[in-house]
Amino acid sequence: MADETHEHRLHVRYAETDQMGVAHHASYLVYLEEGRTRMMEERGCSYAEMERSGVGLPVRRVELRYRAPARYGDELAVRTRVVSLRAASIVFEYEIVRPADGARIATATTELACVDLRAAERSVIPLPERVRGLLGPPRGDA
Amino acid sequence: MADETHEHRLHVRYAETDQMGVAHHASYLVYLEEGRTRMMEERGCSYAEMERSGVGLPVRRVELRYRAPARYGDELAVRTRVVSLRAASIVFEYEIVRPADGARIATATTELACVDLRAAERSVIPLPERVRGLLGPPRGDA
Amino acid sequence: MADETHEHRLHVRYAETDQMGVAHHASYLVYLEEGRTRMMEERGCSYAEMERSGVGLPVRRVELRYRAPARYGDELAVRTRVVSLRAASIVFEYEIVRPADGARIATATTELACVDLRAAERSVIPLPERVRGLLGPPRGDA
Amino acid sequence: MADETHEHRLHVRYAETDQMGVAHHASYLVYLEEGRTRMMEERGCSYAEMERSGVGLPVRRVELRYRAPARYGDELAVRTRVVSLRAASIVFEYEIVRPADGARIATATTELACVDLRAAERSVIPLPERVRGLLGPPRGDA
Repeated sequence: MADETHEHRLHVRYAETDQMGVAHHASYLVYLEEGRTRMMEERGCSYAEMERSGVGLPVRRVELRYRAPARYGDELAVRTRVVSLRAASIVFEYEIVRPADGARIATATTELACVDLRAAERSVIPLPERVRGLLGPPRGDA
Repeated sequence: MADETHEHRLHVRYAETDQMGVAHHASYLVYLEEGRTRMMEERGCSYAEMERSGVGLPVRRVELRYRAPARYGDELAVRTRVVSLRAASIVFEYEIVRPADGARIATATTELACVDLRAAERSVIPLPERVRGLLGPPRGDA
Repeated sequence: MADETHEHRLHVRYAETDQMGVAHHASYLVYLEEGRTRMMEERGCSYAEMERSGVGLPVRRVELRYRAPARYGDELAVRTRVVSLRAASIVFEYEIVRPADGARIATATTELACVDLRAAERSVIPLPERVRGLLGPPRGDA
Repeated sequence: MADETHEHRLHVRYAETDQMGVAHHASYLVYLEEGRTRMMEERGCSYAEMERSGVGLPVRRVELRYRAPARYGDELAVRTRVVSLRAASIVFEYEIVRPADGARIATATTELACVDLRAAERSVIPLPERVRGLLGPPRGDA
């Protein structure tokens, strides 16, 4: 699935650093969110539009390994791919690297639930067929 | 109006520092927001409830002077008071001090507009009488 | 080890919400950080002091499960405990609950490495004996 | 000085929104910071390098007017220019616009002090001649 990996480039912002002199570890969740939403945008299923149509993808689970610190001004490449399209959830995998020296900054997995944003209490709903089609071919574990 | 000043205490979080080793300057806007919303809560006009009733108070203008750096773990006192209740806006003034040494960390003014959150395009609406009553006596410039 | 659990209370800030109307998932990492650093402070090993002495505890790994959304103004209890004190790392476990209704908001694990902040390249160093003593009794996996 | 205005483009991130459905007002300070540091980078005086050489530019004063809300996914243009190079401070002016519809999102001014990051207590120092030369011609108020 290497050719299905999406890459988004960003620079570490000053506001994202902490007094240890590196990007604060919570910033990485924002980098991952940027990675997957830009991927969705480019594949034709804009997350902004999904929400306007009443469907949300809140994060249900995160696993993140910090492998090397990223510093202010570093350009990072967030490589994102869909590893599982289930009935009502999606699993994304990520690798964040620093192209300048090839350093592997972080690896991560996030699981997102598909929910009805219009229900009083958010209820889990099937992933729209259109989104499923745009984010990947049906897979064995789908 | 000294006796109408509200004080909220908070500690500078690690995530709020930057690589200069101090609280990042954008964090102060969050401290001010905490100051005024806690004040509103204690005066009986919870901002959370205001929004649920369809009325919002977005920030329209900020003036902020940074006077001394705040560091991770510092306890800060955010002193907030209402300086002007206008037809459709409120002006708050703030002083942030560090009680441990009396240092004056920042002074600020924010102006908030009163808007209808249910309109398709946010329109400015009169400040609810109840909020006006709870946040201060009618004043000359009201 | 139930009696070794530390509890820190905080309120969800407005700035921490996102357009889904709930606390943004990256905010939880800040809540966990607040939980463990307040615990360290109360046990006599202030993280601020550790850093001043040249020892840092960067996050190396995070696992986080989001179980129920938290909303603006919610009071949350972050319950933190040390589950493993290794030669050069600590593993913390957390449960975030909302006392008002007993909802379980999130559960998490973070692993922190112990590093020399004064080395040009951060090198892993043994956890100071003093910190080890204050954070828990030596354990089988220590 | 119109030709001395620098433009930086960015997209509003999901994490930057709040429950009002717009970019939270504290995010704008980060947008301004991005604007001025990208400008400095392109003019040959990287702020990251300045800090490594021991010179910092902390924000001393902010004035910000919010004119129209920005929403998730919006592309914004941050237009930055230097309006005053003083002995030991710089004043930047900004305009944030949304190119898609020409909306004027915000206007702002920030004043930054020049400080010695290596002094135990930050002391104000003259702006390095090199920075002064790269950021603009000497001006009447310099």
